[in-house]
Amino acid sequence: MNAVATQQGNRIYATGREARLAVRRGEHRGPTAGIAPGYVQGNLAILPKALADDFFRFCHYNPKPCPLLAASEPGDPRLPALGEGIDIRTDIPLYRVWRNGELVAEVPDLKALWRDDLVAFVIGCSFSFEEALIEDGIELRHISCGTNVPMYRTNIPTTPAGPFHGPVVVSMRPLKPADAIRAVQITSRFPSVHGAPLHLAKPEVIGIKDVMKPDYGDAVEVKADEIPVFWACGVTPQSVIAAVRPEFSITHAPGYMLVTDLKNSRLAIL
Amino acid sequence: MNAVATQQGNRIYATGREARLAVRRGEHRGPTAGIAPGYVQGNLAILPKALADDFFRFCHYNPKPCPLLAASEPGDPRLPALGEGIDIRTDIPLYRVWRNGELVAEVPDLKALWRDDLVAFVIGCSFSFEEALIEDGIELRHISCGTNVPMYRTNIPTTPAGPFHGPVVVSMRPLKPADAIRAVQITSRFPSVHGAPLHLAKPEVIGIKDVMKPDYGDAVEVKADEIPVFWACGVTPQSVIAAVRPEFSITHAPGYMLVTDLKNSRLAIL
Repeated sequence: MNAVATQQGNRIYATGREARLAVRRGEHRGPTAGIAPGYVQGNLAILPKALADDFFRFCHYNPKPCPLLAASEPGDPRLPALGEGIDIRTDIPLYRVWRNGELVAEVPDLKALWRDDLVAFVIGCSFSFEEALIEDGIELRHISCGTNVPMYRTNIPTTPAGPFHGPVVVSMRPLKPADAIRAVQITSRFPSVHGAPLHLAKPEVIGIKDVMKPDYGDAVEVKADEIPVFWACGVTPQSVIAAVRPEFSITHAPGYMLVTDLKNSRLAIL
Repeated sequence: MNAVATQQGNRIYATGREARLAVRRGEHRGPTAGIAPGYVQGNLAILPKALADDFFRFCHYNPKPCPLLAASEPGDPRLPALGEGIDIRTDIPLYRVWRNGELVAEVPDLKALWRDDLVAFVIGCSFSFEEALIEDGIELRHISCGTNVPMYRTNIPTTPAGPFHGPVVVSMRPLKPADAIRAVQITSRFPSVHGAPLHLAKPEVIGIKDVMKPDYGDAVEVKADEIPVFWACGVTPQSVIAAVRPEFSITHAPGYMLVTDLKNSRLAIL
């Protein structure tokens, strides 16, 4: 393990597995951005089996906002497709517990809450494609500003499955037009982490009245020579689940992700 | 040879070679758009050997506006890389002859004008990527309207070589944002026929004051839910050559292209 630190002062780990084990041991308790460069991080949603089949179908029907990286067997906390020895009950620094759609607790592990009927879904996240954009020299405003990416509910409907339905939520990154074109090329290579943008310029066309007033995250400046570029966002499944008000569900706390053994570069299709 | 006709009433030929032989025999005298679906057509520039080496370098330095498909040996009218038995002196329906940068004649063949020091350059054209866009269901306004694509001089400089220099000329197609994203993906696959757009939205950023006033071609409407999308254009090498005022040069007449034996689908890199 090396002792390099992230901008937030976090230690940086050489592999996803080392980062995950540090989380499990309680050595790493903060947000996970940047703690294992090059490794895929994922959003978490845990649902009772009674809802899991419909949610699985929902992800399949909506691959851009809900790119499913893996799902566990009911009651099984392992996710072998994503990493050696993952225990979804202990390997995320902070969880949110929901009852009937209300946030009831934030907890550092699920040891006391795990049930035999729970299914864990891990959904791709924009960290992977953002790493590829930054490596190409494209500035991402929310990262330069150290804020959360701005996110918006749109007028684009998801394809429903069982009780799950609702609008697509998008994230927005302001880019110069030539960088927007390059960003379409780069993110098209990453279909399992939201893929190409859904939309660009003309926010009103997708129901966004004011880009300076995001529904989630923080506003960032769009300069005169830039256009807003919109990607489908992993907040979509969270807002869709919240709308169903399941008797019990668990998500990661925003920014506290599952670090996997998959390399970002291996998600690229070309 | 089949007897299907294009929208302009032209006969449609089953292969590029059949279309080319019909041109050579004088059976086809009009513009070439649509006369051999699926086959690559090219822009022509013919220069004396004294200028050809610099122009070759110019094309190499500026692959987006000047994607060179092939160049002949000096004095040799054949282009074996582009098709069986091509004779560049007879296989285009209409040529333009330039002396000291002035248009002096339009002629149906070059039999009386060919010289031992002439080099023919064939440069990729947007017909190839437009075919791919239309096959994907994207409407191209200038084609729906039956007009020439609008083209504009920009403030983007080409990389100079010898005497050749000047601004990049772009063509513009208005598209809905989601179609613009798809068009970036599709045209990125065709680097030898201008490739991905150079720019989109915000025409003023590249020096275009009014999209309704193109420098070449015809204006087309940009609807409220559309953005203008700009591709590097094969008029760039023509305008660059005109600025040099060579003692002698030849181009195709606009719309009267060389039909090759290459399939558009074979230009796709992915």
